[in-house]
Amino acid sequence: MPVILDSAQAPTLSALLGAIPQANALVKGIQAGAVAGGDPVIQGIGALRSASNQEITFIVSSKYQEDLSATRACAVIMSEQISISNAQSIASAGYAGVICEHPYLLYALVAAWFDKARQPVMAPGIHPSAVVAHDASVDPSAHIGPHVVVGNKTRIEANTQIHANCSIGAHCVVGKKTVLYPGVTLYDNVSIGDAGIVHSGAVLGADGFGFAPNPLAGPGAWGKIAQLGGVRIGNDVEIGANTTIDRGALEDTVIGNGVKLDNQIMIAHNCHVGDHTAMAACVGVAGSTQIGARCTIGGAAMLSGHLKIADDVHISGGTAITADISVPGRYTGVLPFATHSEWQRNAAVIGQLSHLRKRLRQLEKK
Amino acid sequence: MPVILDSAQAPTLSALLGAIPQANALVKGIQAGAVAGGDPVIQGIGALRSASNQEITFIVSSKYQEDLSATRACAVIMSEQISISNAQSIASAGYAGVICEHPYLLYALVAAWFDKARQPVMAPGIHPSAVVAHDASVDPSAHIGPHVVVGNKTRIEANTQIHANCSIGAHCVVGKKTVLYPGVTLYDNVSIGDAGIVHSGAVLGADGFGFAPNPLAGPGAWGKIAQLGGVRIGNDVEIGANTTIDRGALEDTVIGNGVKLDNQIMIAHNCHVGDHTAMAACVGVAGSTQIGARCTIGGAAMLSGHLKIADDVHISGGTAITADISVPGRYTGVLPFATHSEWQRNAAVIGQLSHLRKRLRQLEKK
Amino acid sequence: MPVILDSAQAPTLSALLGAIPQANALVKGIQAGAVAGGDPVIQGIGALRSASNQEITFIVSSKYQEDLSATRACAVIMSEQISISNAQSIASAGYAGVICEHPYLLYALVAAWFDKARQPVMAPGIHPSAVVAHDASVDPSAHIGPHVVVGNKTRIEANTQIHANCSIGAHCVVGKKTVLYPGVTLYDNVSIGDAGIVHSGAVLGADGFGFAPNPLAGPGAWGKIAQLGGVRIGNDVEIGANTTIDRGALEDTVIGNGVKLDNQIMIAHNCHVGDHTAMAACVGVAGSTQIGARCTIGGAAMLSGHLKIADDVHISGGTAITADISVPGRYTGVLPFATHSEWQRNAAVIGQLSHLRKRLRQLEKK
Repeated sequence: MPVILDSAQAPTLSALLGAIPQANALVKGIQAGAVAGGDPVIQGIGALRSASNQEITFIVSSKYQEDLSATRACAVIMSEQISISNAQSIASAGYAGVICEHPYLLYALVAAWFDKARQPVMAPGIHPSAVVAHDASVDPSAHIGPHVVVGNKTRIEANTQIHANCSIGAHCVVGKKTVLYPGVTLYDNVSIGDAGIVHSGAVLGADGFGFAPNPLAGPGAWGKIAQLGGVRIGNDVEIGANTTIDRGALEDTVIGNGVKLDNQIMIAHNCHVGDHTAMAACVGVAGSTQIGARCTIGGAAMLSGHLKIADDVHISGGTAITADISVPGRYTGVLPFATHSEWQRNAAVIGQLSHLRKRLRQLEKK
Repeated sequence: MPVILDSAQAPTLSALLGAIPQANALVKGIQAGAVAGGDPVIQGIGALRSASNQEITFIVSSKYQEDLSATRACAVIMSEQISISNAQSIASAGYAGVICEHPYLLYALVAAWFDKARQPVMAPGIHPSAVVAHDASVDPSAHIGPHVVVGNKTRIEANTQIHANCSIGAHCVVGKKTVLYPGVTLYDNVSIGDAGIVHSGAVLGADGFGFAPNPLAGPGAWGKIAQLGGVRIGNDVEIGANTTIDRGALEDTVIGNGVKLDNQIMIAHNCHVGDHTAMAACVGVAGSTQIGARCTIGGAAMLSGHLKIADDVHISGGTAITADISVPGRYTGVLPFATHSEWQRNAAVIGQLSHLRKRLRQLEKK
Repeated sequence: MPVILDSAQAPTLSALLGAIPQANALVKGIQAGAVAGGDPVIQGIGALRSASNQEITFIVSSKYQEDLSATRACAVIMSEQISISNAQSIASAGYAGVICEHPYLLYALVAAWFDKARQPVMAPGIHPSAVVAHDASVDPSAHIGPHVVVGNKTRIEANTQIHANCSIGAHCVVGKKTVLYPGVTLYDNVSIGDAGIVHSGAVLGADGFGFAPNPLAGPGAWGKIAQLGGVRIGNDVEIGANTTIDRGALEDTVIGNGVKLDNQIMIAHNCHVGDHTAMAACVGVAGSTQIGARCTIGGAAMLSGHLKIADDVHISGGTAITADISVPGRYTGVLPFATHSEWQRNAAVIGQLSHLRKRLRQLEKK
């Protein structure tokens, strides 16, 4: 229960929903509980189990019905279906039921409203300790924090926030309302669209990993292949902390609109990631791989280089993808864990599988 | 052999042990070697094989006995057992034997003493290039390095060290004697207890990865779920370089006392990590997973979200944990490696296992 | 097609090759196409399929022969073999054929030439916002960017570039012509040789992960083992973004000459990496492991601690190496992925393998 507005600042339920433009399209009705009085004052947002009676909460699955009847929250976001199957308990409950389509989305919208309410306003302007190239263009509405560096011919657009200790190279573009949290690095020739969020420690545009064997320099020596491409990132993209996206070798590495990348993801040079694809933390994508739109990739999955992954492919966490996927659907490859001794017994057989199959064949021939 | 004090600064063995408060509880006796003369001057600490004759060293297992008889060190930390089984060689050796309980711990204490002896004293005070909010509270004994940024209402406690280029948000707490190495980022509402160590590039409190499908914004679009919780870290916690710990969605992500996290670990939102649990590098823990106390998690292991892992569970490196673990013990799930061609032969059979089992059943029925 | 020089700046093909010292040893001849006129002006470098007619390109495999006949490029780097098997089409082509040994290497050299041509010259000198210790030594030809911090007794050699927001500890050495991109951290006692490249977010010299059980401090408590060694990195080494290399416990962690490390790699304390070994992104190497020369390690591979890996070993991506490798060759251990339902069927059998083998044996005995 981390966010509580003063009761003076806090909106009533109806005022809260009125302040969220998209709520109108989602909410079908308010079912006032016996105790709630219909339009409670909402001071914060909490989980079903732990919300206080000044808070709004939400329920997204009927498996939490027991928590619903025990909640102390003063308002609960729920689907029509849940409101019907709990009609009796709601009628006598201490909360107002907010009946809506997509309750999880409405929760997201309400949480965003509270987040904005508590966020300090970032003052526009350039902090005196920042070092901005004379030919960079910074919109006067943008916030440039302490110790930020902005390179030549870079363009920082309206209402952008560049937090402390960010380093931005030359010939970059940071679109409108995009936020760079502290310590983000953009190399030269990186562009990111509007309404983006880049978390701390992310590095966009470092050199792709490209080397040619250079026998002229001795046995085993590598010659560096200069990485002449850039990175081009669409609108409404979120990039997690310490994620890295390398610049292309000859052309740009491209991240589509609405892509969501969690922390510590690695996107190698020349990759293309399609619109609205989401990747959980620690995913690695090797060079030149093309991932379609609306894919989801589970944590710590790894994709080899030069692959084509179709739209609407879902890859389970921890899976190594080593070949193209042309058919939408879910793909998995994870070794099941076991107690160590059990694993030892079975793992020993993995190295004999081909031999085992042979023995089976021989038996079948008998 | 990186650390050598001038002989003028260097302590005798007895002075060294006397300067380490816990040594008294561990040391059972000194067995002076024939050559050492009982109380050598100790200028540094080295490994059994490579220590010079101005250095102290240690032996933790009888399998290094051969190295013991060849060591040039002037003092050797060892267990009573090893001292007994090597009594004859020690009597004629060129070193003093430090007989003790927990020789590995005594080595750690001696190493810490030398580390402190060589460390420069960090001057208290705020570097003139640091940018500290007017309503932040910084203890006068704290060291705030160059280009550090400290946000509103943040509290930096006594004897804390915040090294160069760290970015600390608003409403944070950094406890007594805690050290933040260069380039650490704390978002708003992150607290860390006393005697902590946070290594460079660590990011604490970035947004958890939470999105709700938002059909109102088009097919496949994601709506961001604001992350309203914080991060709460106990006392005596070490956090490795480039490790990330995300803030909670509604409540805090919680790291217990004495937890040790290596580099490049990812702890997702809402996780709880129990006291004294240690994780090796590159581990990923997905959202809302609860890990018990005194667990150890091997490098690159991955834990799915919403799991409960009991106390005293030990997970082998590289293992993907995809289900709750309620029984203490060791768990493993790693595919054994082989030469590439051997692997190819056996891997091809993995995709036929269910079919193979069927064929085996049919044979059994005959 | 990111790089185009003005036609005024752009060299002719012969001038371009003349400007690259090593080209002489590689190029065997120029085969002027019917249209090209023999010595076209080269304004940039592109891929075979997408290069414009002001650009040079390259072909490295006969499987791209179709792209060769369709290319718009004005010059194409190729092997003698490809030039012979395409002799007829080249004779009538709109490009000059650059026949050479190691076409991939010549491409690398040409790309490097264009990269240098577009790079801004980094002005020598120390930016006024940098904080350099009075007893550090910085060569006057070195570039020290904004907000950089350089510690006591550190030596920055000639023609080195230290970009914005880097933090360099005490007693470090950064060799000639080495480049540290923005936001790199070097702890104390880290040395890197000449002609190195360290990408943003890399952390060199953080503490190795070493703890001794400390029963004196309570059950499960860990005592920190001070990490007294440093990091020693050879010449011509490239280190990727957000990669971490920990300092040694008693001696140095050592990276050989010509080693190439991609992004988000973790090298633990006391490791040795042999000359010219290359590792793709997200590899983890646990403590004290020794890797030979000229090895390649695929992305997300993991090596356990205290291993010895011979020279010329090639490890496939995603493989967990848990034992010494003394024989050169390729090693693999990756679970093949499948559709989720197929995987479920087969994964269920993995946990029964040892039992299956037993049943097979019984059948064989019949």
